[in-house]
Amino acid sequence: MKPFMDEDFLLENEPARKLYHNWAASMPIVDYHCHIDPRDIAEDRRFENITQVWLGGDHYKWRLIRSNGVPEEEITGSAPDRIKFQRFAEALPRAIGNPLYHWTHLELKRYFGYDGVLNGDTAEEVWNLCNEKLQDPSFSAKNLILRSNVAYVGTTDDPADDLAFHNAIRESGFSVRVSPSWRPDQAVKIEKPGFAAYIAKLGKAAGMEIGSFEDLKEALSRRMEVFHEAGCRASDHGLDDVPFRPAPMGEVEAVFRRGLIGEGVSPEEVEIYQFALLRFLGEEYAKRGWVMQIHYSALRNPNSRMLERLGPDTGFDCIASHHSAEKLAGLLDSLERENCLPKTVLYSLNPSDNGMLGALIGSFQGTEAQGKVQHGCAWWFNDTKTGMEAQLTNLANLSILGNFIGMLTDSRSLLSYTRHEYFRRILCNLIGTWAENGEIFWDEKFLGGLVQDICYRNASAYFGLQ
Amino acid sequence: MKPFMDEDFLLENEPARKLYHNWAASMPIVDYHCHIDPRDIAEDRRFENITQVWLGGDHYKWRLIRSNGVPEEEITGSAPDRIKFQRFAEALPRAIGNPLYHWTHLELKRYFGYDGVLNGDTAEEVWNLCNEKLQDPSFSAKNLILRSNVAYVGTTDDPADDLAFHNAIRESGFSVRVSPSWRPDQAVKIEKPGFAAYIAKLGKAAGMEIGSFEDLKEALSRRMEVFHEAGCRASDHGLDDVPFRPAPMGEVEAVFRRGLIGEGVSPEEVEIYQFALLRFLGEEYAKRGWVMQIHYSALRNPNSRMLERLGPDTGFDCIASHHSAEKLAGLLDSLERENCLPKTVLYSLNPSDNGMLGALIGSFQGTEAQGKVQHGCAWWFNDTKTGMEAQLTNLANLSILGNFIGMLTDSRSLLSYTRHEYFRRILCNLIGTWAENGEIFWDEKFLGGLVQDICYRNASAYFGLQ
Amino acid sequence: MKPFMDEDFLLENEPARKLYHNWAASMPIVDYHCHIDPRDIAEDRRFENITQVWLGGDHYKWRLIRSNGVPEEEITGSAPDRIKFQRFAEALPRAIGNPLYHWTHLELKRYFGYDGVLNGDTAEEVWNLCNEKLQDPSFSAKNLILRSNVAYVGTTDDPADDLAFHNAIRESGFSVRVSPSWRPDQAVKIEKPGFAAYIAKLGKAAGMEIGSFEDLKEALSRRMEVFHEAGCRASDHGLDDVPFRPAPMGEVEAVFRRGLIGEGVSPEEVEIYQFALLRFLGEEYAKRGWVMQIHYSALRNPNSRMLERLGPDTGFDCIASHHSAEKLAGLLDSLERENCLPKTVLYSLNPSDNGMLGALIGSFQGTEAQGKVQHGCAWWFNDTKTGMEAQLTNLANLSILGNFIGMLTDSRSLLSYTRHEYFRRILCNLIGTWAENGEIFWDEKFLGGLVQDICYRNASAYFGLQ
Repeated sequence: MKPFMDEDFLLENEPARKLYHNWAASMPIVDYHCHIDPRDIAEDRRFENITQVWLGGDHYKWRLIRSNGVPEEEITGSAPDRIKFQRFAEALPRAIGNPLYHWTHLELKRYFGYDGVLNGDTAEEVWNLCNEKLQDPSFSAKNLILRSNVAYVGTTDDPADDLAFHNAIRESGFSVRVSPSWRPDQAVKIEKPGFAAYIAKLGKAAGMEIGSFEDLKEALSRRMEVFHEAGCRASDHGLDDVPFRPAPMGEVEAVFRRGLIGEGVSPEEVEIYQFALLRFLGEEYAKRGWVMQIHYSALRNPNSRMLERLGPDTGFDCIASHHSAEKLAGLLDSLERENCLPKTVLYSLNPSDNGMLGALIGSFQGTEAQGKVQHGCAWWFNDTKTGMEAQLTNLANLSILGNFIGMLTDSRSLLSYTRHEYFRRILCNLIGTWAENGEIFWDEKFLGGLVQDICYRNASAYFGLQ
Repeated sequence: MKPFMDEDFLLENEPARKLYHNWAASMPIVDYHCHIDPRDIAEDRRFENITQVWLGGDHYKWRLIRSNGVPEEEITGSAPDRIKFQRFAEALPRAIGNPLYHWTHLELKRYFGYDGVLNGDTAEEVWNLCNEKLQDPSFSAKNLILRSNVAYVGTTDDPADDLAFHNAIRESGFSVRVSPSWRPDQAVKIEKPGFAAYIAKLGKAAGMEIGSFEDLKEALSRRMEVFHEAGCRASDHGLDDVPFRPAPMGEVEAVFRRGLIGEGVSPEEVEIYQFALLRFLGEEYAKRGWVMQIHYSALRNPNSRMLERLGPDTGFDCIASHHSAEKLAGLLDSLERENCLPKTVLYSLNPSDNGMLGALIGSFQGTEAQGKVQHGCAWWFNDTKTGMEAQLTNLANLSILGNFIGMLTDSRSLLSYTRHEYFRRILCNLIGTWAENGEIFWDEKFLGGLVQDICYRNASAYFGLQ
Repeated sequence: MKPFMDEDFLLENEPARKLYHNWAASMPIVDYHCHIDPRDIAEDRRFENITQVWLGGDHYKWRLIRSNGVPEEEITGSAPDRIKFQRFAEALPRAIGNPLYHWTHLELKRYFGYDGVLNGDTAEEVWNLCNEKLQDPSFSAKNLILRSNVAYVGTTDDPADDLAFHNAIRESGFSVRVSPSWRPDQAVKIEKPGFAAYIAKLGKAAGMEIGSFEDLKEALSRRMEVFHEAGCRASDHGLDDVPFRPAPMGEVEAVFRRGLIGEGVSPEEVEIYQFALLRFLGEEYAKRGWVMQIHYSALRNPNSRMLERLGPDTGFDCIASHHSAEKLAGLLDSLERENCLPKTVLYSLNPSDNGMLGALIGSFQGTEAQGKVQHGCAWWFNDTKTGMEAQLTNLANLSILGNFIGMLTDSRSLLSYTRHEYFRRILCNLIGTWAENGEIFWDEKFLGGLVQDICYRNASAYFGLQ
């Protein structure tokens, strides 16, 4: 039996071990999409205890503990931090096979030097150990980033954000590049109650009144300039379904104005508006060399009782059943046919879209990059060992694996960089196994370089970080 | 080469073998969902020959033989039993990789002591051996159940059923708990020709006239009381698609009355009615601590010629393409927001729903059980080695594997309990392989206990059998 | 480490090696569906250089090179052949895991005797080697077919085709049977601009004017007779989605006439027409003992800019999201209920339809063949190692693997016969691994025979070639 999560964790043969240890492990991390609060970095935040780090805002863990029948009080409620940690520790060993089992133990090993297993019995020991270590300055936000060999952090930011924390980070002389990413979801979601208020806020940020769709475009362009100055090279969209409903600009204007005064807009009108806006934004991204990321097929807030109690992003979202080949293709084509399709990364939350996405990207490639249109890495509910293997295998089948821009954490936590290690081990094992079985030609230098491309260099080039 | 289906069948490494032989194998069987006729148990039925046992009502086998080009005459027709058995024996060895290949040989080994292979050449030998054994009293319905270490049998029963056979079983002092499960499909399917007749029958069973939707609710409640008294703790719904179309009660009443007098109801009206009824039933289940099982995405009776000839449930159903994340979520939310969501098990016949279901259950957990909302075990066309591995892996990825309520036979046959063995071997091999590879911490007692939970204790607690 | 693609390539255990080398390898090839131009065979075409062979018309390879960021000029444009070859050679090693990596190296080994790896550095050597070999008469079209142990070539032909090249091949006394297959897509696609012109052309070929749907049926019947005479035993349909919309014949006539005069037809009308035509054709196929092949869920020409530049079938198609269980079942049932369902092979381009298709075929079997209705082999974007394994496993789970009609190339190239070898190795490894693990009974002669059935005899019988 192989020892529990030792240095050869997930590496099942010699070529895999060589690829990982000799080539992948030392690569810097380009974490081009995450949800870390730039304020935490700017203020070089410290954490009092492991519950704050792990359970303060991680809806993956909340969801897991809920699945163990624990009352909300002891998850996000007012129970003491020690109790919350206990509940997590009790749930974890029952969750073998869940990525949290591996993530948690990797974080315990790499950051806290704890090689044991976390469960209800060891919780006290781990609690004490972690909390002691957390007092050390090496556990401040900036030091965690530095210790993790991170070269780039791409946060997720609203166009109306003043980027003050980003400016502060830059001015502090922090050696790691931390840049905002442009996530205009609030401007896109015309059907949401707070839309008009948001547009007003956006107008303020852009220094203008927004009374029309034309104004909106102008305001967003102004904000893009500010983001670009701050180092932004990527956008991100969180969509339920992908919109594709071309309409005359007059109609788009009419829908926008109705949304602005809070008049109901029909689902078709929502799609008209969203498509027009995405079409505009895509063109703007292309102009600036930005990357367009599209995350779709999430079913948000299905549990309305818990939404009212805890708000969004608290671990209740799930996977939608939108299978939007035709709409996705329509959106990309509307840009491509005017030669203004930006570099694009597509992520579906529904794993049964893997095949479809892997084929779709091949229909819109270009010379701007090796792999201009990408099938994004296994996202959220798919961010598991088997989910990553499925995405990588699908990508290899249908495209050029060596051009993949690789992993991101998508995380709110500064300890999640071990997910890159997890990904790299899985990647090296996949390629190493092919070599072991004689399915590919074993040239360590070439394959090692290709692994490094996927782990670091491709993303670095794709997001223009050199 | 490993011997053919020996004691270590499907157990590929030492941890897997330990988990299975030391922990899983001895666990009693909680067969919480099956289609065994309670009459067979009440009357302690005996079988004359192996064709009656295997081919008398098993549409899985009929379908397989049909795929071998055999005329219907020799499958469900008037051909002699020996010929029918021959046709099955000829088809089986060509069906390597099909679960019937493993199920059949497991049943031959465990019940008949036959360790060879069944094919056209050995059919005569097997026919004689089985038929001889079947004469032994140990092959009566009750003795088969007892020999199989079964702790619980949950049958599938119509609300209008008088439960006479269930009462007879209880009164006979049979040591195994046999309880009805509540399957009100005929009350749900307002679009079917026999609906009005069924409602009349249901009213009679409930001792009242059913003239309105309110009456229907009352009648169903009365029958639920009777079922509850008879030990019922689970419901079951077989749905084509999941309904979600909230409407005012007046509209529901109007649709019901139109259905009752045989007036056509539109697909939208069907959905209005079905949703209202499911919403009502879910609340009733929650009140009683019952489990709600939802089986959906079957495409029933696509072959209308054979439906006319042989009737339903004769091996012609297939998998539908309903991908109902939004509707399923809507149905669950409509209950959850009033705090009346019962324990729920979701089964889709379409395996491309696995990811979606695995995520959805996490959005509606509660404190009533560890794993209140469950992704049901691989069902029907998915009840295969790879289908079970996919369901288990998906469940482990997205939820807490240790809280899974495990396997059921879904079978019409008393020899199908070997499917629990099949499942347990696959489960132990999955977990054992993780341990062998160092992906989980090897603590035999803990993992053995967790395996026992999944094989027995979780279902026992979930269905309130203690 | 196993040597790179040696004689035991993909064969991971002794039973697999025995099944492949002793049984599968020597079987003749029945390539019942391909896109080879019969003119190439009739004229016994020779190729000047390897770029003409590999990159002259292979949209798989074009797509791959595009994914490497190469300008179109150097793919399908006017760049010199040597440059185009260089770009392909540079992309290939980055595409580990892609079937092109295996296909290319198998072709280099089997046809050109080159055992090395193709990359940017070896391109010059390979270019020279291949071009020299290509001068040899053994590389003429007919000789490539003969050297590949091909017993049957089924091309893809339009009903209006005069079959002159087919006649020439037959008259030339070529020892391999080369027959046309009937692909009436142009008659089906009433919504396309060239429809009326095509119908006129078809009428001319049939020696009649086509002014009505009744005429169309008559013309198609006449052409079928001609095709049948020329050896045709299979049809093929490339559908976006599967049509199922029964309507009175008067309506069908009206739609057809509107299509004929170029009046717009609505999507519903298109479906009415297409269903009526398929329903008619299916019955005609059944009468003649032909096989009906249905390929669906392709999303054609999503990139309108490149469509305008390069035309269709140039590597821009992708996978659609049609999940048509209900429509497919409706179409098959409409034939089955009148006892005129032909032998049918179903192929979906969307791999998430695998489970659905595997179940659906079991609902419409018959006595015309062992496996009358087939789930076709992994098609196009699924024609990969993992895609084939998924299709085979799914088929084994849900049907009788031993009755599968096996592989086809679907290729435009005469070097693609190695795809049969690739398939056979994967098939033998799957079955061999089951035997190695004791999951099936090891009887080499029986399993070897079953492998031969799948590789050769089943297709031979199914397409009536004996």
